Amino acid sequence: MADYRAPLDDMAFLIDELLDAGTRLGGLPPFADLDVGPELTAALLGEAGKLAGEALSPLRRGGDEHPATCEGGKVSISPGYAQALKQLGEGGWLGISADPNYGGQGLPELYATAACEMWNSADMALALAPILSTGAALAIAAHGNEEQKQTYLPKMHAGEWSGTMNLTESGAGSDLGVMKARAVPEGDHYRIHGQKIFITWGDHEACDNIVHLVLAKLPDAPEGSRGISLFIVPKFLVNSDGSLGARNDVYPVSCEHKLGIHGSPTCVMAFGDNEGAIGYLLGEENRGLACMFTMMNEARLKVGLQGLGSAEGAYQQAADYARERVQGGVPIIQHPDVKRMLLTMKSLNEAMRALVYSEALTMDLAHAGPEAERAARQLRVDLMIPVIKGWLTEVGQEITSLGVQIHGGMGYVEETGAAQYLRDVRIAAIYEGTNGIQAADLVGRKLGRDKGAAMETALAEVADTVRALRDADDTALTAIADSLGRALDQMRASTAVVLQALDEDMPAALGASFDYMMQAGYLLGGWHLARSALLAHQRLADGSDNDFYRRKIATSGFYAERILPRCAAYAGAIAGAGDGLQAYPEAWI
Amino acid sequence: MADYRAPLDDMAFLIDELLDAGTRLGGLPPFADLDVGPELTAALLGEAGKLAGEALSPLRRGGDEHPATCEGGKVSISPGYAQALKQLGEGGWLGISADPNYGGQGLPELYATAACEMWNSADMALALAPILSTGAALAIAAHGNEEQKQTYLPKMHAGEWSGTMNLTESGAGSDLGVMKARAVPEGDHYRIHGQKIFITWGDHEACDNIVHLVLAKLPDAPEGSRGISLFIVPKFLVNSDGSLGARNDVYPVSCEHKLGIHGSPTCVMAFGDNEGAIGYLLGEENRGLACMFTMMNEARLKVGLQGLGSAEGAYQQAADYARERVQGGVPIIQHPDVKRMLLTMKSLNEAMRALVYSEALTMDLAHAGPEAERAARQLRVDLMIPVIKGWLTEVGQEITSLGVQIHGGMGYVEETGAAQYLRDVRIAAIYEGTNGIQAADLVGRKLGRDKGAAMETALAEVADTVRALRDADDTALTAIADSLGRALDQMRASTAVVLQALDEDMPAALGASFDYMMQAGYLLGGWHLARSALLAHQRLADGSDNDFYRRKIATSGFYAERILPRCAAYAGAIAGAGDGLQAYPEAWI
Repeated sequence: MADYRAPLDDMAFLIDELLDAGTRLGGLPPFADLDVGPELTAALLGEAGKLAGEALSPLRRGGDEHPATCEGGKVSISPGYAQALKQLGEGGWLGISADPNYGGQGLPELYATAACEMWNSADMALALAPILSTGAALAIAAHGNEEQKQTYLPKMHAGEWSGTMNLTESGAGSDLGVMKARAVPEGDHYRIHGQKIFITWGDHEACDNIVHLVLAKLPDAPEGSRGISLFIVPKFLVNSDGSLGARNDVYPVSCEHKLGIHGSPTCVMAFGDNEGAIGYLLGEENRGLACMFTMMNEARLKVGLQGLGSAEGAYQQAADYARERVQGGVPIIQHPDVKRMLLTMKSLNEAMRALVYSEALTMDLAHAGPEAERAARQLRVDLMIPVIKGWLTEVGQEITSLGVQIHGGMGYVEETGAAQYLRDVRIAAIYEGTNGIQAADLVGRKLGRDKGAAMETALAEVADTVRALRDADDTALTAIADSLGRALDQMRASTAVVLQALDEDMPAALGASFDYMMQAGYLLGGWHLARSALLAHQRLADGSDNDFYRRKIATSGFYAERILPRCAAYAGAIAGAGDGLQAYPEAWI
Repeated sequence: MADYRAPLDDMAFLIDELLDAGTRLGGLPPFADLDVGPELTAALLGEAGKLAGEALSPLRRGGDEHPATCEGGKVSISPGYAQALKQLGEGGWLGISADPNYGGQGLPELYATAACEMWNSADMALALAPILSTGAALAIAAHGNEEQKQTYLPKMHAGEWSGTMNLTESGAGSDLGVMKARAVPEGDHYRIHGQKIFITWGDHEACDNIVHLVLAKLPDAPEGSRGISLFIVPKFLVNSDGSLGARNDVYPVSCEHKLGIHGSPTCVMAFGDNEGAIGYLLGEENRGLACMFTMMNEARLKVGLQGLGSAEGAYQQAADYARERVQGGVPIIQHPDVKRMLLTMKSLNEAMRALVYSEALTMDLAHAGPEAERAARQLRVDLMIPVIKGWLTEVGQEITSLGVQIHGGMGYVEETGAAQYLRDVRIAAIYEGTNGIQAADLVGRKLGRDKGAAMETALAEVADTVRALRDADDTALTAIADSLGRALDQMRASTAVVLQALDEDMPAALGASFDYMMQAGYLLGGWHLARSALLAHQRLADGSDNDFYRRKIATSGFYAERILPRCAAYAGAIAGAGDGLQAYPEAWI
């Protein structure tokens, strides 16, 4: 198979044209020195695309074929991975959006988002290493004291040290309240004892040190989730001069044998089986979950990007195959149903990308935009994150499965590499909060807290786009407007049903939440794609002869014709639902 | 995980009550001696369920963990598989619906269908062995001369010999016209030369002999698919007294490394690399494809059963897990979204089962029913087979994926066994004609040949059911009628669009075919489930106090509320489709 080629044209179109990052971010204080705009975009995306395509994506199959293994308290990873991680660190990609005072590049999250999509298209298992490291660094940046930040962040941003998140315990998945890990105070530090499972990139020797962030309970902590604290537990203790000291009492016990992301070591980690692992409190006592939650939006956005990234990789491979594979005397790309599958993949990928990049920009504005606007931006981000995480990872499964299907029998043979995208991406619907939890968050928390006000604000913007599409008085855009308008009406109807259920019958609201999340994703992805078509139309009207714009209108048109009608299914299920779900006795299942 | 428990209550309800096999099949000549009815059903299903649950399903994980391997021209299979195949043969299950004159049991296809569902729930990789054997035997029964039937069928029906189908060649998947395998006449037989790929259960040592059915071309055969002949190529030649003679020149070259069905040896087979493999013409020269097509309906129905069987297995495991797994202080089966997933699985499984069993009965009536009705029955079967194959295998993917999701992180760990259902069933959408080919067959051939008459006959029956549901004057049934009536209207609208496209714009019809197939599946599955609810309502009205009937009404109600609205998405995509698919330049993909 060919190496991954980053879709630079679509990425740059979104960043520079649709989102106009130069204007909207360029003047903000944190980015004032960066000269945000098309030149920076081209340089950055070009470099990232080169790294993803030439250095990372050739490792994808090897990572699958040589799963990470754990023996004698050490983890071995796939050949080439250590070198690739070194390149990511040396290129500054681990600290791309981090504080320059601690070795970060200080770039907008929007660029980090594009880069992260690329790593995930190239090799999702490998991409988890930088995702976890930057997540851990973000937590330290947000909650660490100055000494902690000086000690850990520059090394982590340079990729010399990696980071992990240690939340889950055996028997306690999404439910963190029943945690068993304990932290006992001892002078300026704590001794940590306990076992954690599902620790992504929990151990390896590609970096000099690993900074484990660990949730544990203090001896007299309150019951439940309000009694959990967060600790920094480095694999090697760090001397006061920054050099590495003794090996800490934290070891990998085993690696899981998983459906996918074989290259990523998913470890059972033992803390303190011997003398106790030395840990340092991060943030305040008993506030560990709150610390974790502050970086949850970023983490969930990145898991959404795994859905998109895998889907893009699968699409490229399937399109290549469909151009080469001849059946019935013609390349199968000419078979209407194969073409339908490819356009389904392409249009959904572009819709997902437009949605997630748009909200990455919103995230930047929520952090760094004019003070007066930040709260509203944050409300939008909070609303969209569960949709991004849930919808993109559900759609990622469909797209990668279509990639297998287009390959026919060859898609079922592992050497082809098509099935790996499907196996890898399957986890993204589960971790970082299952998609059921995302849906519950969207409906129970995000809709509930403002009675749908933030959603209505977004839907009013969709309505603006529908009007603008009609005003253009163009056949293609009018067809898009018709479909988007219908989908918007359906979304308003579903929102009304769900809001009423929130007031009257919470289980009914939760029972509808997954359908509601999916409906929101299809509508909002279609909206941003429609905005893209509108802009493309204007560019052509302004005299551009760039086929990219014609292609964008056609892709959006296909989505409006064939994908947006899916909203009707979700709307129908939400509108027509009686008490069939709640009244069904569990004993009958 | 617990062993598979065959859903005997639902199976018996369908066979004895909804389909009333005793009345409709019992008096027909081929079944006159069998005493078809509840007693036979209970005895047969009980035996099959015991075998599937106790002997086959415990082998499923082992088959996955010990993939079939090929070394030195021999294939090794997973421990326990040989014994299991022996039990299937000794139990008479391989010849369950075959001619008693050649060692078959002579039972209706309806019972074979129920048994085949069970084998596939227990272990889909293992189930492929009897599926391929019975398919090969069916071809010999239909096209062999008396000597061939006497020689091969009793041994195959007893499971002493197995059978394979050798169609595909490297570079020629669904397109059989470009076949390279050659057959050269030599006295009363032929010498076969060529290589075949993707040969399911192509070699193993669990049976004394393997009867390969091989497509190849005679030296002066016409070009394309009209120049292909079918040959019997036994692994060991058979002496005139029926004993085994010399090893034939057919050998496995390798086994594929696949996404799933690891236990099933998928072989590259070399015919005639040395002196030439001896083969015997089956049927007429150059009529090989026609011979293959006569058993295609049976084969495709069985692949549909793989979708259902896997989904049932995944459902049982997920339901068990959801009852045991506690999060937030309660078993997760009480979480509304988990319950939604389980009821989605359960209601779709019951809809799939009702559809496929109904058409298995139609198949029996088409073969053995009153002469005057056979042609119409066959038209119905021909129409439904692509829906059964396509829809059941697509839904099978969704259900098995939900099974993974319900397990959370544990579902992604292979030892749990949830992911295997998903990996195994993924092939069913590809082989025996990809689902794109099923969709093209449904629209291009089955709708096209009678301008939708057979479909309209079926839809008129759906309309009858809608009326009968309303006539019952019961709240639950009326709600089902409303949803089914809407879905019926949508199906008629889609059918009209597709029929018009068939006249005017074939690529548009083919571009809509997949959505049309899925819409048909959801509607027709829902129809048979609604018929089941109606019958259950009558039973309760007649004084029964069996909770099974209440459960059936509730399950059908959930399907009507939450699943049938999916028809709106397909209808919307078909109704709203402009030329977005056809006009899109392939170079832009």
